[in-house]
Amino acid sequence: MSNLVRVGLLGCGNIGTTFALTLRESADRLEALTGLRFELSRIAVRDPGKARDPGLPAELFTADAEAVVAADDIDLVVELMGGIEPAGDLLLTALGKAKPVVTANKELVANRGPELYRTADEAGVDLLFEAAAVAAVPVVRTLRESLRAEPIQRLVGIINGTTNYILSAMSARGLEYAVALKEAQDLGYAEPDPYADVSNSDAGSKLAILASLAFGMDLAAGDVGTEGIDGVDAEDLSIAKRYGYEIKALAVAEAWPDGSASLDVYPALVKDSHPLAKVQGSFNAVAITGAWCGELMLYGAGAGREATTSALLGDVVDAAENRSRGTHRRVPIHRPAQLRDREELDSSFYIKLKVTDRPGTLSTVSAVLGRNGVSIRFVEQENSETDTELVFFTHPTVQRAMNRAQAELVELPEVIEFVRMLRVLSI
Amino acid sequence: MSNLVRVGLLGCGNIGTTFALTLRESADRLEALTGLRFELSRIAVRDPGKARDPGLPAELFTADAEAVVAADDIDLVVELMGGIEPAGDLLLTALGKAKPVVTANKELVANRGPELYRTADEAGVDLLFEAAAVAAVPVVRTLRESLRAEPIQRLVGIINGTTNYILSAMSARGLEYAVALKEAQDLGYAEPDPYADVSNSDAGSKLAILASLAFGMDLAAGDVGTEGIDGVDAEDLSIAKRYGYEIKALAVAEAWPDGSASLDVYPALVKDSHPLAKVQGSFNAVAITGAWCGELMLYGAGAGREATTSALLGDVVDAAENRSRGTHRRVPIHRPAQLRDREELDSSFYIKLKVTDRPGTLSTVSAVLGRNGVSIRFVEQENSETDTELVFFTHPTVQRAMNRAQAELVELPEVIEFVRMLRVLSI
Repeated sequence: MSNLVRVGLLGCGNIGTTFALTLRESADRLEALTGLRFELSRIAVRDPGKARDPGLPAELFTADAEAVVAADDIDLVVELMGGIEPAGDLLLTALGKAKPVVTANKELVANRGPELYRTADEAGVDLLFEAAAVAAVPVVRTLRESLRAEPIQRLVGIINGTTNYILSAMSARGLEYAVALKEAQDLGYAEPDPYADVSNSDAGSKLAILASLAFGMDLAAGDVGTEGIDGVDAEDLSIAKRYGYEIKALAVAEAWPDGSASLDVYPALVKDSHPLAKVQGSFNAVAITGAWCGELMLYGAGAGREATTSALLGDVVDAAENRSRGTHRRVPIHRPAQLRDREELDSSFYIKLKVTDRPGTLSTVSAVLGRNGVSIRFVEQENSETDTELVFFTHPTVQRAMNRAQAELVELPEVIEFVRMLRVLSI
Repeated sequence: MSNLVRVGLLGCGNIGTTFALTLRESADRLEALTGLRFELSRIAVRDPGKARDPGLPAELFTADAEAVVAADDIDLVVELMGGIEPAGDLLLTALGKAKPVVTANKELVANRGPELYRTADEAGVDLLFEAAAVAAVPVVRTLRESLRAEPIQRLVGIINGTTNYILSAMSARGLEYAVALKEAQDLGYAEPDPYADVSNSDAGSKLAILASLAFGMDLAAGDVGTEGIDGVDAEDLSIAKRYGYEIKALAVAEAWPDGSASLDVYPALVKDSHPLAKVQGSFNAVAITGAWCGELMLYGAGAGREATTSALLGDVVDAAENRSRGTHRRVPIHRPAQLRDREELDSSFYIKLKVTDRPGTLSTVSAVLGRNGVSIRFVEQENSETDTELVFFTHPTVQRAMNRAQAELVELPEVIEFVRMLRVLSI
């Protein structure tokens, strides 16, 4: 086999451009490292006539992505188009022709992962996707390889830089959600349409990918429960802080003794002594708890063109070396999904209610909680000029009990509004 | 090839016992994961007659380590004896017979690494050593694989749990060094003879291993400059804290534009906003800065029998799977050592001098610093009942200038003692 690795790139936006330029500039260095000569051979884009970075010759561009994945003179495919289709079918074609694939497409991997893994495995080539999770933070490889044998119990991540930027700004400077979101948009951390980020659906896709690897289970984006951060207000952050907590958008995957798994992304209170509470701004982190390894944490920039390029190049070199040795790494998914009923999950809660300012209200509300088996850790009454609020921190409670209590509370004449219910991360 | 992987274990102390029991207990689970049947076939120990854990059958034990590494019915060797010899020669024999090797022996890898890597590569089998660095914190694999293509600029680690425990206790509770050391010994975090830890020579071996991988350079323990933590006192920690710093035992490796590298372990001041400043107690962390990935940090328990077992099992599974596919991973060392002259290294410094309490002392001392090109960021005079001390924080200064200034200062009649010189980590 020749030492030439001819790379076909699908998609050439911001990240694609940086990746393409870096691959070209690094060819000599990569050859010295690996003995392999990487050549960027073709770039498939929607509009090949569009003006591109002068470092990328016009003759590389083509509109025919199908021809790139099928071509005999393409050895490895890097996919940065995004979206489930046509990316998915293109990659199945590439893998079917025994071309290793490297992708940053979290939506695709989180939705059609198992089909792609199987196809890659049958073809005996790699499907690598570090860049589809937390950019250069090497969590995919750690789960696939280092912790392959580890009985993993829990994975908790801050895996979206936009929501972490917004919540950090709200916490540090007392900003309201809308103001912090606007600032994140102005700085380019949030999209003009922020829905995918602030609803936590982007983090949900990443969590599905990571949890599949952690638990060896066939999990998809649809298996993740998501709750957005748009309900959290500056007052919640200030109350949380007073009791020694930060509020973070947490992606939480847990393995249960019956073999089931739970996957959720939601805003939650994190004790400020926990390393995750210190993750600021657009930074990301993933904490993994295993039976033997204890708690590990991986931390770094979870997005950005350079960080994503770092992850892509690591995978490209790995896939090319494996190809040259005639080997590949299997994705360790070996069980069908088995999801835990969310009502069975335990958590401590932070609850905020707007109530009438009358004697007896606290007693009535507390009685409803108690009757439903929700044990109160402490309660605080907040009086402003216009409102009276009750803030409860509960002991660990099963979600079913909390839901029943909520249903009763909203019917009480003393409860004007059930303002907030957030989980508190157990350490 | 059969799916049986017959493991020969060298050494059976605390970690060896936990590893051996875990491997045996996990055989069914590992077979379900990998299709490979792991069998612990033999354990070489100095005294096979000694009482062992009841979970390990007496017939596994032998005194003949040479026979284990040479035996035709051993497929993979795990080495937990420690020490450079006879471990080194035993592993060369095992590798020469095309048996993959997994080791936790940092001293060996830091001193005879390149010879072992070459032998493994020629035999076409793996030599894996995650457990020789920071236990289950997956830094070896991250450097070998994820960041293979990354131009790594700097690696800064807290990679010894004993020194971090001692310095954390001194910082949090104002303990003096000797008291904190005694406490660490009582709790089992420090050995009765603490020299290897507190002198930073243990951390130096780990740094040599990590820096070799980060820079692709043939570096050994002897290439690391080490300075112990025993000089740091409670007053240093309290002064540092007043200015927003913690003092940590840092392992620092840097790549320089001329292609050279520097490797040092020393106590240093770290700005308390840096994630490394938050690493408490016996925990470890490694921060890696690359041209593309930015700053990544990996965090977790850096020692202990379970955490080390986690790293060993990850490597055992990897080496066995590679063996079954007839492949292996090369250790990416490709350049001879090129070390930067330590006198050329830049740093900001913290300096503490005991001086005579006379007008003009500060001016005389400052003049010496200035004349030698050491620029002062700020200075504080500390008066106690018995002593007058001057504490300087300098701007970045080349080590040569600082050394010259120190040589002049100790000759001044105003300087009673040059008490301390610590580096300040640049962020």
